[in-house]
Amino acid sequence: MTSSRLEAFSDGVLAIIITVMVLGLAVPKGASWTDLVHTSGLGLLTYVLSFVYIGIYWNNHHHLFQLRPVVDGAVLWANLHLLLWLSLYPFTTAWLTQTRVAEVPTVVYGLNLLGAAIAYMVLQQTIAHRPGGARIRAAFGRDLKGVISPILYLIGIGLAFVQPWIGLVPFVAVAVIWLVPDRRVERYLNAQGPLGEAADDEEDPA
Amino acid sequence: MTSSRLEAFSDGVLAIIITVMVLGLAVPKGASWTDLVHTSGLGLLTYVLSFVYIGIYWNNHHHLFQLRPVVDGAVLWANLHLLLWLSLYPFTTAWLTQTRVAEVPTVVYGLNLLGAAIAYMVLQQTIAHRPGGARIRAAFGRDLKGVISPILYLIGIGLAFVQPWIGLVPFVAVAVIWLVPDRRVERYLNAQGPLGEAADDEEDPA
Amino acid sequence: MTSSRLEAFSDGVLAIIITVMVLGLAVPKGASWTDLVHTSGLGLLTYVLSFVYIGIYWNNHHHLFQLRPVVDGAVLWANLHLLLWLSLYPFTTAWLTQTRVAEVPTVVYGLNLLGAAIAYMVLQQTIAHRPGGARIRAAFGRDLKGVISPILYLIGIGLAFVQPWIGLVPFVAVAVIWLVPDRRVERYLNAQGPLGEAADDEEDPA
Amino acid sequence: MTSSRLEAFSDGVLAIIITVMVLGLAVPKGASWTDLVHTSGLGLLTYVLSFVYIGIYWNNHHHLFQLRPVVDGAVLWANLHLLLWLSLYPFTTAWLTQTRVAEVPTVVYGLNLLGAAIAYMVLQQTIAHRPGGARIRAAFGRDLKGVISPILYLIGIGLAFVQPWIGLVPFVAVAVIWLVPDRRVERYLNAQGPLGEAADDEEDPA
Repeated sequence: MTSSRLEAFSDGVLAIIITVMVLGLAVPKGASWTDLVHTSGLGLLTYVLSFVYIGIYWNNHHHLFQLRPVVDGAVLWANLHLLLWLSLYPFTTAWLTQTRVAEVPTVVYGLNLLGAAIAYMVLQQTIAHRPGGARIRAAFGRDLKGVISPILYLIGIGLAFVQPWIGLVPFVAVAVIWLVPDRRVERYLNAQGPLGEAADDEEDPA
Repeated sequence: MTSSRLEAFSDGVLAIIITVMVLGLAVPKGASWTDLVHTSGLGLLTYVLSFVYIGIYWNNHHHLFQLRPVVDGAVLWANLHLLLWLSLYPFTTAWLTQTRVAEVPTVVYGLNLLGAAIAYMVLQQTIAHRPGGARIRAAFGRDLKGVISPILYLIGIGLAFVQPWIGLVPFVAVAVIWLVPDRRVERYLNAQGPLGEAADDEEDPA
Repeated sequence: MTSSRLEAFSDGVLAIIITVMVLGLAVPKGASWTDLVHTSGLGLLTYVLSFVYIGIYWNNHHHLFQLRPVVDGAVLWANLHLLLWLSLYPFTTAWLTQTRVAEVPTVVYGLNLLGAAIAYMVLQQTIAHRPGGARIRAAFGRDLKGVISPILYLIGIGLAFVQPWIGLVPFVAVAVIWLVPDRRVERYLNAQGPLGEAADDEEDPA
Repeated sequence: MTSSRLEAFSDGVLAIIITVMVLGLAVPKGASWTDLVHTSGLGLLTYVLSFVYIGIYWNNHHHLFQLRPVVDGAVLWANLHLLLWLSLYPFTTAWLTQTRVAEVPTVVYGLNLLGAAIAYMVLQQTIAHRPGGARIRAAFGRDLKGVISPILYLIGIGLAFVQPWIGLVPFVAVAVIWLVPDRRVERYLNAQGPLGEAADDEEDPA
């Protein structure tokens, strides 16, 4: 069973999530710069943040399935489980925006981010433990980013109880950390060599 | 005529159905946990339930077309007929939620589920009776889940007239039963052996 | 240049059109059968009608591109032109429904249907006049349905000025006529023989 | 790493953007031609304009990836960056329409168009500077349209401060200029010969 249809379906869901969030952006009643900033400014910022998260998941998902894992029922459901968490982003993003970053909505947004991160780890582990998963485990090696992300989400959730805006800082930090996509896989596919901790710069020889 | 485009189109429709339901989730006006539970709690539960149903159909659809059936006009329309029923899930789910599981909306939700189940059976039968369908009929053998599901939906519809919440129990039961995807097909593709009634556990040798 | 990406994009647009129409269905405030019929009954009927139209276009589009036409800039734009007309269906369907089939909305709905039919003819002609189009022209032969459809739409538009509900009759007739997908193409691909006017029944030998 | 999944994902996002804009079209309360023109006339015009822009980007994107560029992390993100700008079209189009082409919304619409044009140039440059990009740079040669477009957008933005409706003229001009898709690529793929400035007419020998 190949992964092509799982990828196509996931692409569809992610494409829709990334796009429907824009439907949640309130269009200003007035026609001035002030109206734009007041009505839509915060919404645009949270939109871009959630867009980046979905983009990160799409990139990593793309890299993960480049490894051509075995796709069976367990992988299909682990993937749907991830998509379920991601599909809630438009909802939690809208609540965060409409309450102008209040305490509980920030915590809920963080829990949504954390849930998706855990679901991605579950998907990765499910794939790594199918037949032939040794190859995939080798491609991952030490998953530093994957370990740091949920910790940062937890810190953000904790800080949100103190001051919601400060809680957003670790969330944004995760986005920044992941903006560089998963080079481990690219490197493995290109080199098939041992995985060191070499610099992840843009000039990787292809 | 290959099934690749039918699959791509169905993936698109299912991806959109699964995602637009989240647009139906009411965002709380307030910013407290109580607001979240009161405004969105039930909506989140019914969202997850409908998400799981669509996920089940996607998984089973995926498995069905792995058998590479002949695709002609009759199959195209049997497939669109299924998509029509599934596309009504966001509507019936929203009504169920907004009336907080009232009697008639629960019955209508059940009828929607039943209609989709019948449409899937029609699609399966249409495919099984194309040229070369003997191979597909062999892969299905005794379709226990397929027979039980509409019966459970009918029981749920009946119970909904007594007490709507109790009517949801058989609906949820169907979701649980189907969460394990259609191993019959996986087994057939892997083994091409006779189809016994062996246990459907996660540890199937691939 | 292959048509695969044009098909994928068209599938995406059609899948979304077919699905977002359901977002236009008003969810009843009340929880009774009367509320359902009164608030959503007409909407469900027009939804199914527009769903069938989009399904017809998808099927015919699918058949058309099975002929592997040359895809260049002119074909890309003829295809986008068709998608533009089809993308207006949710809008004209919603107006038709909300005015409960008033005169002008029925005429506008008919003009939308007519525009899409003409756009499909333009696409078909554009494809037939690319290099290698002789093969495609042969597959079409006498395009009876394609000629009748715009005439029926025109009759419907005319009748709508008399009595809107009567205007819908020829529109529904077109849907019924086209529900049988374009067998000319299937027959050509299977037989490569001369195209007679044999009966278009479900039992075509494959 | 092939570009097929990047293309599929982009197709999905563009298909959704092009389609969800129709959800922003206000359905007239009344049932007369006057109601239609007054409530939806301007919205239909701006819808068609934005539809054409998205169609142009899809066509050019399609042509660009026909050149089979190397796809790595930098290309994935340059592509997502473009999609981010394009995903804002429904929002800026809605504001432009609802304020009936007021000054600031016209400027913001122009900035959105400009941002997408720059993002496309960045994507093109990113691709042209991957390994093997010499072939791609050769296919582009003198990118006249690509240079003129942002200049026209800037002129439109400037004119919008004088009179918003006049500002729309250069925006529309860009759409007209680009309606002819990127023949440079088609020509390169067909001929692999030197790139002159020959006429871009519809009768290019295939």
